[in-house]
Amino acid sequence: MIEVHEALAIVLRQTPYLGSEDVLLEGSLGRILAEPIQADHDQPPFDRAAMDGYALRAEDAATVPAVLRVVGEVRAGQTSEASVGSGEAIEIMTGAPVPRGASAVQPVERTRRLEAGRVAIDSVVEPRQHIAPRGSEIRAGDVVLEGGAAIDPATIALLASVGRARVRVGQRPRLAMLATGDELVPVSETPGPGRIRNANGPAVLAQARWAGAHVRSLGIVRDDASALTAAIESGLDADVLVVSGGVSAGAYDLVEAAFARLGVEVFFERVAIKPGAPLVFGRHRRTLVFGLPGNPVSAQVTFDVFVRAALLRQQGARVVGRPRVDVELLAPLRNRSGREAHLPARVRWEAGRLVAEPLRSMGSADILAHARANALVILERSRIDASPGERAPALLLGNFLERDGVSLP
Amino acid sequence: MIEVHEALAIVLRQTPYLGSEDVLLEGSLGRILAEPIQADHDQPPFDRAAMDGYALRAEDAATVPAVLRVVGEVRAGQTSEASVGSGEAIEIMTGAPVPRGASAVQPVERTRRLEAGRVAIDSVVEPRQHIAPRGSEIRAGDVVLEGGAAIDPATIALLASVGRARVRVGQRPRLAMLATGDELVPVSETPGPGRIRNANGPAVLAQARWAGAHVRSLGIVRDDASALTAAIESGLDADVLVVSGGVSAGAYDLVEAAFARLGVEVFFERVAIKPGAPLVFGRHRRTLVFGLPGNPVSAQVTFDVFVRAALLRQQGARVVGRPRVDVELLAPLRNRSGREAHLPARVRWEAGRLVAEPLRSMGSADILAHARANALVILERSRIDASPGERAPALLLGNFLERDGVSLP
Repeated sequence: MIEVHEALAIVLRQTPYLGSEDVLLEGSLGRILAEPIQADHDQPPFDRAAMDGYALRAEDAATVPAVLRVVGEVRAGQTSEASVGSGEAIEIMTGAPVPRGASAVQPVERTRRLEAGRVAIDSVVEPRQHIAPRGSEIRAGDVVLEGGAAIDPATIALLASVGRARVRVGQRPRLAMLATGDELVPVSETPGPGRIRNANGPAVLAQARWAGAHVRSLGIVRDDASALTAAIESGLDADVLVVSGGVSAGAYDLVEAAFARLGVEVFFERVAIKPGAPLVFGRHRRTLVFGLPGNPVSAQVTFDVFVRAALLRQQGARVVGRPRVDVELLAPLRNRSGREAHLPARVRWEAGRLVAEPLRSMGSADILAHARANALVILERSRIDASPGERAPALLLGNFLERDGVSLP
Repeated sequence: MIEVHEALAIVLRQTPYLGSEDVLLEGSLGRILAEPIQADHDQPPFDRAAMDGYALRAEDAATVPAVLRVVGEVRAGQTSEASVGSGEAIEIMTGAPVPRGASAVQPVERTRRLEAGRVAIDSVVEPRQHIAPRGSEIRAGDVVLEGGAAIDPATIALLASVGRARVRVGQRPRLAMLATGDELVPVSETPGPGRIRNANGPAVLAQARWAGAHVRSLGIVRDDASALTAAIESGLDADVLVVSGGVSAGAYDLVEAAFARLGVEVFFERVAIKPGAPLVFGRHRRTLVFGLPGNPVSAQVTFDVFVRAALLRQQGARVVGRPRVDVELLAPLRNRSGREAHLPARVRWEAGRLVAEPLRSMGSADILAHARANALVILERSRIDASPGERAPALLLGNFLERDGVSLP
């Protein structure tokens, strides 16, 4: 049984980068940037007015009130031929280029327009005020984004501003998923005695989609050697094949035999993680093969730690793990498993501290406790008990921001 | 000029819920649940083995070593007709129903299989160990999810387990967006003198998509009364129309006139927020109309606070705002705007505290500083200066988890 960090290192070492493709800017949202991005021009490209008001020579308003002659107007998108001379001002709009001669912009709120084309400046003007100088935000040639960044709306704004109507991003991996187990029935059926619904299929496919994969369901496969082998074989053309179930001590024979028959090289079969110790990772040519535990919480947790990391790595992402934070426990936790426990909790801010309320969980099959969690508190192998007030590391789950935003009337 | 919270209250008061629709479970990811969900059966539906091992009577292994006769086997998906009598054990797999008579499961690792169908139990067995009793996780009829929750993969697992192959979710709003300003050129063009690229169009559409909207671009519209009126009119069939630009003091005449001509009822035109004071909100029948500032950072920030909240509310979401946390400042901040300042920062954990490193920003047009931020630190209107070591509230942005996850080799 190997440690979580060792297992993850093996997975990432075996994970090939899938290459890149060009996409339209509007299709790049959520993708992983595959190239560094340089600015093509200075930003602002000219000395830009940051307020609506009057462009003027600061020295003309060093003592106030001062009265200036308004000799023109310049709006965003225009360039003014006029220049501002001594005793003069040009009316200017936010975003417009500051005319020659002017050294400051006085906001319109601090002026009074007078008759006969004049304006009164009532408060002292400082040189350069309300002017964003050319190149002060970004200089032409600056690298503004590194490859490996996830593209979010703020990144889209930046890419647009440097003229990237197309952008190079990591290829999306294709993931195939099958659930094995005689106990499984489809979601639409009512389980008979001893049966349960296949929650893993939909959950893993959803996790994979949120990690950027194209997904394909291979459905439910019975615990039967030839059916299992055929289903696994049909998934080996994907970049990642996930088998859920069939990896616990009693059931692994069939999956193990199928992997052997198909030439899957297996790197590990057990990881010191709870939930989820039985966890198989192998490879078949360029296809990564994961055998996840059959119970839905184990499957979700191990997917998040290992499969999600691999999918992100295949796309070239720089960050492949959940944020790990230190939390203060509000209730005791126990870990007698001899493995690294990942325990469902709700993390929130309280008086400047991050506190974690462990969720009552009936164990590694408790789907409800997992669905209510926004974080997993980690107790290392050697840490058997943790008391209220003690600190522990926690991984923030993907729902963290959604679940704990500000709720308003 | 009204306060941020007043403006938001007005927006939400004017925002209609758009109703709900049935979708397939696999199409529900990211949608907002529109109904409470009840469990249709107990979970587990039977007393379930939590480990691979042997089902037995605990009293038979109260003193060890004990040797028991193995009288059968039960796997997940099976039901056993056999029952466990005194001195007997049944081999059992994780997830299988515990046979009648048995009161505990002993993990296979703590047993030794002997010849002649017997098993040795080497460590003391406690009653009920490694059995998840029927209904211990969820009872039939329990409400497991409330309406208004965002559907993430863990929610999908829960919905699947209670048999929801279809689920009722909030309708997705349709958002139309136009950017106005003579200074704007499309992303694919190189801006001439005084011009800038239209970053707002792509950025706002991306933000809207991440908030669940169907989006439609109405492109760039010149500062021309009839073109602007026609473009705005064409967007009034959407649920939300966003106009970026044309709302600052100098440029607002055209947009204001177009709104008046088309019968848009305007609720406010300025909000005490920086960046973004000029911010128009109105309504035309059921269509919400937002006039966002033309500069890209102002547009993104005000979208996030107001438009995103409205889009989520239209879908029935319970949480419509970003998480608000307290952070400790690592550098001084100033706010002489007389408005509530939202300042770009990078928030991270340090020795159990959340600390914020303000990003050097050249002001409200600095796209790069905003793209590097993972949070906005808030300085209230009355707070002119904040020193290192002081606390301030911060809103965590949508990229927070992606940007600050664990980076691995």
